[in-house]
Amino acid sequence: MYRIILASNSPRRQEILEQAGMSFQVIPSNCEEITSTTEPESVVKELALLKATNIANLYKDNTIVIGADTVVANMGNILGKPADELEAVNMLMNLQGHSHNVYTGVAIVIKETNGNTQTLCFSENTKVRIADMTKEQVMNYVLTGEPMDKAGAYGIQGRFAKYICGIEGDYYNVVGFPVCRFRLEMKKLGFEI
Amino acid sequence: MYRIILASNSPRRQEILEQAGMSFQVIPSNCEEITSTTEPESVVKELALLKATNIANLYKDNTIVIGADTVVANMGNILGKPADELEAVNMLMNLQGHSHNVYTGVAIVIKETNGNTQTLCFSENTKVRIADMTKEQVMNYVLTGEPMDKAGAYGIQGRFAKYICGIEGDYYNVVGFPVCRFRLEMKKLGFEI
Repeated sequence: MYRIILASNSPRRQEILEQAGMSFQVIPSNCEEITSTTEPESVVKELALLKATNIANLYKDNTIVIGADTVVANMGNILGKPADELEAVNMLMNLQGHSHNVYTGVAIVIKETNGNTQTLCFSENTKVRIADMTKEQVMNYVLTGEPMDKAGAYGIQGRFAKYICGIEGDYYNVVGFPVCRFRLEMKKLGFEI
Repeated sequence: MYRIILASNSPRRQEILEQAGMSFQVIPSNCEEITSTTEPESVVKELALLKATNIANLYKDNTIVIGADTVVANMGNILGKPADELEAVNMLMNLQGHSHNVYTGVAIVIKETNGNTQTLCFSENTKVRIADMTKEQVMNYVLTGEPMDKAGAYGIQGRFAKYICGIEGDYYNVVGFPVCRFRLEMKKLGFEI
């Protein structure tokens, strides 16, 4: 039996894995998020691996650690969480009228029973199209506080749904965890969830 | 000021409209759902209108009634809610390995201040791709009871998420209400939500 650890503080990621029927502990990684690249797929995989490894290092065996990182890529720019309300407004004003891409990277680090370590990283991409919004609508949304802990300054779930015309790809990848792809990758590693 | 009525018993539709910030009453239509057509877009628009009209007839003026209907179209077949567990299993077995389409029709019936009636119907289509599932996975999902009140025998939200590879279109259309398109249509009619 393996203990499973989610190395993420995101309540949305926790909820997605719980709903998928998984039992796991949450031990957020507090490592500094430094990346050596500017290409979104590489960034999210690298940061996911950094987080997972940071926690996996605390264990010797029988442990699976899952790390994840999400960014929004918009016209060549990588958007993380906004630093303040003004940045959130600017991010949202720049997302309108065209599609952007949301990348979530997932790292799975397995400390096996024999002490060996197995590592797998992947990333998923979902295209999202946001409707035209007035500045007032953007300001009102930012004032709810919802954008502040979210890459790209919006949450696809809930309050912002009325501004999202459509997506191409996995919805849960935009929420923060591509659970279908994760299940398939875990299956390849010999674990059914 | 208009009273707004949602003529649907679906808790998912109520939640989507609440999260969009709308204030409304719920008065489910109990009319018999008879349709004259077999084309999915026409079916959902017709049934949405039937439900909305059924409730709108109870009011003279100052009222907006919203009706909605969702079906799954899979290889030429229209799937509503499964009649029993066996039908749910069959529906889910037939959805795998290819894409299907989810159609939600929305009808907006406005009883204006002067007593006139304005009516608008539209439908949205979202393509959904479901991963291969084992018969055991299908059976386990059906045993949760979740499929029984849902067109096509699955809910895209929650427990089934790990089997959904991806979608093309509005996620909330699959949940049961295309809230972004609804907002745009309401705007054309002069109502901001």
